Amino acid sequence: MPFITFLTDFGVQDDFVGTCHGVIARIAPEARVLDLTHGIAAQDVLQGALVLRNSLPYVPVGVQLAVVDPDVGGNRRAIAVAAVDGRVFVGPDNGLLLLAADSVGIASAYEITNLAYRLEEVSRTFHARDIFAPAAAHLANGVAASELGPEIDPATLIRVSVPEPDIGMSQLSATVLVIDRFGNVALNMRREHLDAIGLANGDRVEVRLTLDRYYAIVAETFADAAPGELILYEDSYGLATLAISRGSAARLTGVAVGDELRIVQA
Amino acid sequence: MPFITFLTDFGVQDDFVGTCHGVIARIAPEARVLDLTHGIAAQDVLQGALVLRNSLPYVPVGVQLAVVDPDVGGNRRAIAVAAVDGRVFVGPDNGLLLLAADSVGIASAYEITNLAYRLEEVSRTFHARDIFAPAAAHLANGVAASELGPEIDPATLIRVSVPEPDIGMSQLSATVLVIDRFGNVALNMRREHLDAIGLANGDRVEVRLTLDRYYAIVAETFADAAPGELILYEDSYGLATLAISRGSAARLTGVAVGDELRIVQA
Amino acid sequence: MPFITFLTDFGVQDDFVGTCHGVIARIAPEARVLDLTHGIAAQDVLQGALVLRNSLPYVPVGVQLAVVDPDVGGNRRAIAVAAVDGRVFVGPDNGLLLLAADSVGIASAYEITNLAYRLEEVSRTFHARDIFAPAAAHLANGVAASELGPEIDPATLIRVSVPEPDIGMSQLSATVLVIDRFGNVALNMRREHLDAIGLANGDRVEVRLTLDRYYAIVAETFADAAPGELILYEDSYGLATLAISRGSAARLTGVAVGDELRIVQA
Repeated sequence: MPFITFLTDFGVQDDFVGTCHGVIARIAPEARVLDLTHGIAAQDVLQGALVLRNSLPYVPVGVQLAVVDPDVGGNRRAIAVAAVDGRVFVGPDNGLLLLAADSVGIASAYEITNLAYRLEEVSRTFHARDIFAPAAAHLANGVAASELGPEIDPATLIRVSVPEPDIGMSQLSATVLVIDRFGNVALNMRREHLDAIGLANGDRVEVRLTLDRYYAIVAETFADAAPGELILYEDSYGLATLAISRGSAARLTGVAVGDELRIVQA
Repeated sequence: MPFITFLTDFGVQDDFVGTCHGVIARIAPEARVLDLTHGIAAQDVLQGALVLRNSLPYVPVGVQLAVVDPDVGGNRRAIAVAAVDGRVFVGPDNGLLLLAADSVGIASAYEITNLAYRLEEVSRTFHARDIFAPAAAHLANGVAASELGPEIDPATLIRVSVPEPDIGMSQLSATVLVIDRFGNVALNMRREHLDAIGLANGDRVEVRLTLDRYYAIVAETFADAAPGELILYEDSYGLATLAISRGSAARLTGVAVGDELRIVQA
Repeated sequence: MPFITFLTDFGVQDDFVGTCHGVIARIAPEARVLDLTHGIAAQDVLQGALVLRNSLPYVPVGVQLAVVDPDVGGNRRAIAVAAVDGRVFVGPDNGLLLLAADSVGIASAYEITNLAYRLEEVSRTFHARDIFAPAAAHLANGVAASELGPEIDPATLIRVSVPEPDIGMSQLSATVLVIDRFGNVALNMRREHLDAIGLANGDRVEVRLTLDRYYAIVAETFADAAPGELILYEDSYGLATLAISRGSAARLTGVAVGDELRIVQA
């Protein structure tokens, strides 16, 4: 009973996800599809790549199907990337799969071109349904990744770059990577970056936005602060994250994904 | 391992969908439920009927359960419609099932009245849980559609009418059918309607709304236009659709489902 | 093939739910996870508790996993509550599980402390992934609840109190408990409360808010009223609920969860 995990930016309003489930069920009725998330921000390849990488250790080894595909119908390749641990990543060649695939190690990569493993009619705008879901289903049925098309050099695969924080003596400049449903604001900073400017639990920092500034406490969890107090904590994936106990840090500060902010010792 | 596909306007905020899954699992623990979508606009029977028909070729033959049911508790019948290809459609008799059922061909139809195949207590407002999901589950268990209640004449089933575009010499008037999560605006026009007013790929058209007008390029996919440019393309279900590469046509134009607009050669 | 039902306030935007599915699939690949809802309002323990209790009769006996956990990382206990009917409820000890568990009867309760049944690394902020989902998966694998940790006295478990309406001679004061996707406004009133002030189907009542007042008809279903007319009906879980046929009572009245309103004979 092979697992296919499935991540997209399709949302849950339309039938895009359900239709892909249908395509998989017709080709591989025994496969089990595990929806990782379909809430990636529309066409946000970087966010999709981060979520795919961060959640990977928690999902079963299997086919890792992911589609965030702003260039569908253009020249970007459709790829299957076999990892050294047995996972096969399937999706567009735009960087989406590579943070995850590189994190475990790539064994080989293939361009998906074999007409036998796609739907008979391929639309110009819905390759998840017509190319990627069928390829994933055939892989789940036991087809080898090498059957999907010609091998390609992993070095030629597109990679996204994750913005790195700028680190000064007593401050650093960070970028908002993801804002979750609770309004927690994950930054492109990890424990090591906080350490680099000498911040420890219990320290007070200033969070400077373009127009506003806020104070936050470096903490381990929401319970370490009073309700309503802003904290800077390491989230469950290791990202330094702004949050408010029983509140929304995103709503308080008004920040959006991609915004820059400055963390300063207070 | 029979498949039940499931389409509703219940959204994902409440427990409506999960509770129906529970009811099915209690009656038919072996059945597999494939959520097609629960994001049909609230009580929009026409949209539900279109999505059910358009996605049908991509989902497994099985029980096709669909509930968009503004007249629940009133006089509308609960029906099971057996198609010539082995599918059985289950839902309210308000047109929701009929675009799909007619597209494959109806073999026979039944009113669901048999008390043995519903929950013991039937509420007045949640027939998906109390009547439709149990009927679908019993069908998945192998109960014949004819067991559910008396046969009814398919000609008596309610049908929805899909609005047709008005076609002139060099322009046509169309209606917005569906707006998807990416802001793509699907119209009640197909390739043949574009052909009828002599439009081909690469042509420029004017899109006239009540107050505004926009220019669009007739194209095959997003990659055929510059980012930010409006295109008119045939979507993956064959509907002529307004879109913007890496943007939202719905947000740009401000149109809503049901709005009329005019497509004119530019 | 054991069932795990899963209810949270995680929403469907992030990968929280999918990652928990992944954790369960790695530990108990045969288990079937039934998503009851992930749309509980963020950190609204009372709403989660009500939905869990109300939907319970409709879902299979199995592991009932529920996580609405504003005090994650603090001192609240992680618990497994075995019910007399064979269900085992898993989640935080904050009242979330107890309306449901008490409704069937508690057999025994345990604090989840056994390191063998959690992930190796436990974060401070995502116990659903690191503690609750693993515990549920091990239970589905046949591990006894008593293996998860020391038995605790059910009397020591935290319970939420459901607000009760204030009942006068000819009026009562009620609280909004839940607003669903259709804008139906469920109150903390049941049939017995309507009976107590002598209301029967067809009666007209005044609904008084802080600033506005509306008239509603006591009815059994939407079809008993004209489109656009406000009704007060018993919803499918037995709660007195304000609704509008083919409209949204929540949008009309502007009420929110927790608001108080007064129902007066008109």
